[in-house]
Amino acid sequence: MIATPYLLYLGHSNDEMGIKTARGLAVFRPEICLGEFRHADSRLTLGLPSMTFAEAVAAGARTLVLGITNPGGTLADAVVEDAALALEAGLDVASGLHQRLKDVPRLAETAARTGRLLHDVRDPPPGLPVGTGEPRAGHRLLTVGTDCSSGKMYTALCLMRGLRARGIAADFRATGQTGILIAGAGVPLDAVAADFISGAIEQLAPAREDDGWDLIEGQGSLFHPSFAGVSTGLLHGAQPEAIVMCHDPARVHMRGLPGRRPPELGECLAANLQTARLTSPAVRAVGIALNTSRFEEAEASALCRRTGEAFDLPCVDPVRMGVEPILDRLLGPSRPHPFAAPA
Amino acid sequence: MIATPYLLYLGHSNDEMGIKTARGLAVFRPEICLGEFRHADSRLTLGLPSMTFAEAVAAGARTLVLGITNPGGTLADAVVEDAALALEAGLDVASGLHQRLKDVPRLAETAARTGRLLHDVRDPPPGLPVGTGEPRAGHRLLTVGTDCSSGKMYTALCLMRGLRARGIAADFRATGQTGILIAGAGVPLDAVAADFISGAIEQLAPAREDDGWDLIEGQGSLFHPSFAGVSTGLLHGAQPEAIVMCHDPARVHMRGLPGRRPPELGECLAANLQTARLTSPAVRAVGIALNTSRFEEAEASALCRRTGEAFDLPCVDPVRMGVEPILDRLLGPSRPHPFAAPA
Repeated sequence: MIATPYLLYLGHSNDEMGIKTARGLAVFRPEICLGEFRHADSRLTLGLPSMTFAEAVAAGARTLVLGITNPGGTLADAVVEDAALALEAGLDVASGLHQRLKDVPRLAETAARTGRLLHDVRDPPPGLPVGTGEPRAGHRLLTVGTDCSSGKMYTALCLMRGLRARGIAADFRATGQTGILIAGAGVPLDAVAADFISGAIEQLAPAREDDGWDLIEGQGSLFHPSFAGVSTGLLHGAQPEAIVMCHDPARVHMRGLPGRRPPELGECLAANLQTARLTSPAVRAVGIALNTSRFEEAEASALCRRTGEAFDLPCVDPVRMGVEPILDRLLGPSRPHPFAAPA
Repeated sequence: MIATPYLLYLGHSNDEMGIKTARGLAVFRPEICLGEFRHADSRLTLGLPSMTFAEAVAAGARTLVLGITNPGGTLADAVVEDAALALEAGLDVASGLHQRLKDVPRLAETAARTGRLLHDVRDPPPGLPVGTGEPRAGHRLLTVGTDCSSGKMYTALCLMRGLRARGIAADFRATGQTGILIAGAGVPLDAVAADFISGAIEQLAPAREDDGWDLIEGQGSLFHPSFAGVSTGLLHGAQPEAIVMCHDPARVHMRGLPGRRPPELGECLAANLQTARLTSPAVRAVGIALNTSRFEEAEASALCRRTGEAFDLPCVDPVRMGVEPILDRLLGPSRPHPFAAPA
């Protein structure tokens, strides 16, 4: 287990989406986030006290969490430098990047010398099974998206909270580094060997008999050429009874790919349902979650209303409006949907 | 590099599809395959001389190739026992299974003591890039399938030979352990971390300007719930100008999944073209390759003729009939196809 409380690392980041790990922790586990570490050239903040490593240690922090992401998942030199200083100051270091802390000689040596720990959250568990697609018991909902970084983790967490608030058993099943740091468990799906993608999810969300729900965190997008394989295996392994589509209407191009436009919502919904049917023939869409952070209040409401009407689905911004309409649809009577497979 | 010639290991195998690695080597690289090793309870043969490890060493063999596969990719106790004896007898050992030879203490110890080498063909190369989906120069053909083990490697190899026989530059791009052992290079796609599936293929078949062809070995099937993620990323990374659908008409259920029927050919063609269009909008199907080994000659011919007519595509069994009709279609004038995307 990773020692808490955390100091959240922003470093030199100036890309809001690049610090989603840190922000996710600050939002969903504020009780374990003591402060943030940022250089003067970073214009971002999580609203936490800014601390040096020494100040954080004095305040009781136990672990520096490298809450940053980038497409290649590598550790920049400046990040390695900071991590080494944090170890010297008395902090453990945790990272969800592809490149492992323990594979950087300087960090491995410094950790060994100082007696501090390095946590690579992206190391997949050993002994994963191959997926089978066999029907299994239990209610499962998967959040899917038109793109990466479109709100899939947030939405799954909000749905879990909402279900629990209604007295319904619900568990968040994390598939990414931020989710794993938040939940304390999960599978770093993007680091799993390709043959075991669906099997890893079958293991992460096994059969359950208590009438409760597993809320599974989606990854990538069927329309993202870098990561659609992950999204496909996740859909098949999740065997979802329901999906919620997450979308950022202000996105101009696919994450990391200037010039590639995001797919249409309807096309993306249809493709996800078609792909999901291989292992979950009765899958249905139960809502759309929009990230309306770039829009004024009235504009955001109108956008959700129009989008919901266009697809006959409850449509909300989970952060601004909550997820009650989606839960109502999820728990209400099943009914034919425009995207349902022909009988 | 792996020392040749090879002794091919069949062990206790009685599953023809489980020895496809060994058979692929015997068929496509007979000049480096000296013999086969099988136990008395195996009813299979590659038609090579059966040898003990000592006999193989005496005959000049350098490496025992564990030419066997299974869904989980694990090393059975009996296989470990045999591999250890082979090392003692003076052979190196090569394997394409997920479970690494070097991770089995007994084999690591025996190899170290005897000075023999262990080759894990399934170790992916370090430093793979994330895919981009950016258009790149060159002609690429990908073999796809209705299921695993449906002839995708054989077909790609036959197409490569056929193109070369016509004086056209052509390279086989291996994505599985057998293909890698045959080609001497490639990427073991099923062992690549999920985030890098499409990027690995973009690297394996980079832009080429010589008007030659890359024949890319497909993996899995979009309709196989264990491996569809691999197939999806492969389609996106390959960015194929053309696909050939490989199908075993005698298959009763999906490989390893009793009770799950293979998809219809037309449904599978349409899904592959739809998925491929994300990175290759003008992709077209240029043929169907059937495995007719379970059928009599006349029946096989009729089956190919009927199937070809049904989909307006050249249809052959590459092993029995060659691939000339597919090459004619591939190299002939482009024309609208029933599965083409609407203009």
